[in-house]
Amino acid sequence: MTMTATPFRLDGATGLIPVLGSPVAQVRSPPALTRRLQEEGVNAINVPLHVAPGHLSSVVEALKNTANIMGFVFTVPHKIAALRLADRVTSGGSAAGSINVLRREPDGSWLGDILDGQGFVVGLRHDGHDPARHDVLIIGAGGVGGAIAAALAEAGVRALALYDIDRAKCEALARRLSSLYPSLPIKVLETPAHPAATMAVNATSLGLNPDDPLPLDLATLAPETVVAEVVMNPPVTALLEAAGARGHPVVLGENIFVHQLDKMAAFFLDPAAP
Amino acid sequence: MTMTATPFRLDGATGLIPVLGSPVAQVRSPPALTRRLQEEGVNAINVPLHVAPGHLSSVVEALKNTANIMGFVFTVPHKIAALRLADRVTSGGSAAGSINVLRREPDGSWLGDILDGQGFVVGLRHDGHDPARHDVLIIGAGGVGGAIAAALAEAGVRALALYDIDRAKCEALARRLSSLYPSLPIKVLETPAHPAATMAVNATSLGLNPDDPLPLDLATLAPETVVAEVVMNPPVTALLEAAGARGHPVVLGENIFVHQLDKMAAFFLDPAAP
Repeated sequence: MTMTATPFRLDGATGLIPVLGSPVAQVRSPPALTRRLQEEGVNAINVPLHVAPGHLSSVVEALKNTANIMGFVFTVPHKIAALRLADRVTSGGSAAGSINVLRREPDGSWLGDILDGQGFVVGLRHDGHDPARHDVLIIGAGGVGGAIAAALAEAGVRALALYDIDRAKCEALARRLSSLYPSLPIKVLETPAHPAATMAVNATSLGLNPDDPLPLDLATLAPETVVAEVVMNPPVTALLEAAGARGHPVVLGENIFVHQLDKMAAFFLDPAAP
Repeated sequence: MTMTATPFRLDGATGLIPVLGSPVAQVRSPPALTRRLQEEGVNAINVPLHVAPGHLSSVVEALKNTANIMGFVFTVPHKIAALRLADRVTSGGSAAGSINVLRREPDGSWLGDILDGQGFVVGLRHDGHDPARHDVLIIGAGGVGGAIAAALAEAGVRALALYDIDRAKCEALARRLSSLYPSLPIKVLETPAHPAATMAVNATSLGLNPDDPLPLDLATLAPETVVAEVVMNPPVTALLEAAGARGHPVVLGENIFVHQLDKMAAFFLDPAAP
């Protein structure tokens, strides 16, 4: 076994922030978020917890009753179900319909937020793409799609076009966004095609498996349209490879993770938190 | 904040062994047990979990349903209550009436054991005291007193004399020990005095607080009687200080912890375990 060991503080007074997923072995936050927290002088670690969907609620409710759990991180497939484990949710989480972080507040209640979309937007800017200049097609209205849509709306995107094979889910997301951002043009599409898009985002899990079909037909996009991805394993999905070959600027899925670590650490280190 | 960082492996595939206590900040196993496990090439960490007695059962039962929890360590005040969270208990745990470790077996069931008494016996031998030569007075028939009594019985102690302010608890422990070790002489005392003792063990929490009375009257002991302690904070309790001043050989409470770490690592690394 390869042991890549990093110096971490770990003792009886260490606070815990479990990251819950199913599976969970692929998550990258334990060493990365722990490092950020400990660099801030906080004695806390982020540990993986492999929880099947049927046990999510009982595990989280039980762990809320332990004194040194500072909060939780949720990954696939828990981001939507985790919403109802929060006592309060930020407007971003409400708009997205999902959360990926939950923290204990000073009054003992639990506040949820979704940081995936914020990570996506920071990553876009880091790659030189200003969201305010874009008309964005988002394929997938699930947890991460909702998070990206909400964060783009907050970032002043020109327009959004949403597609999901589950049209009702897509319309529900559009309604939540419209109530929070009434002046933002939002379209719900019948097919995953929107020729006016200047950016197209795959927010489905298509691309995780080598045999997956592409989530959209690149021939429907203008040549300069930015193609972005949420799948981060493989780092370059079949969609990004094909898009790159056609000359589209591409944005990697891991941007979302890398650029939300600071926001995640800040969420758990908020001065209002214990 | 002083950061004493040790290189640990921590990633999405790390297995968890929480140590449950109330309080828990004082526990020393997280860095020590983690180091032992990782020295064996196992990707696992021991993390503190502060669980009040009323939540012990719900927290453990919920965590049993997560895939990467390898087991649990229990400290004060959970060692007796933890017994009923095990599907099977070693004979040592049954005799002691308590467990401090619980592991997931290959068939998905949970096996409990108590290692405090084994740590105590290894520590005695390490300090040059052969248990088989001793007639031992144990004050306190709770979790750790039962564990020490059972391990001493297993190690072939000459005789045991037990005292607890709760006489029924003391008699129940004596009955459990007698059924497993029918030829061992066991006395249940009316007062914490046994002049024939060649070793006296404080297995109560008296000594944790500076204002605690001594758990026994040292004037009732022969001068060469060994005086041993389970309290490890302070390292030298008022009892050990007084005993040392009278010329008794003394055994520190931390012996129990230090000398059970190898056994704890071995318990969780048993080849039958996942």
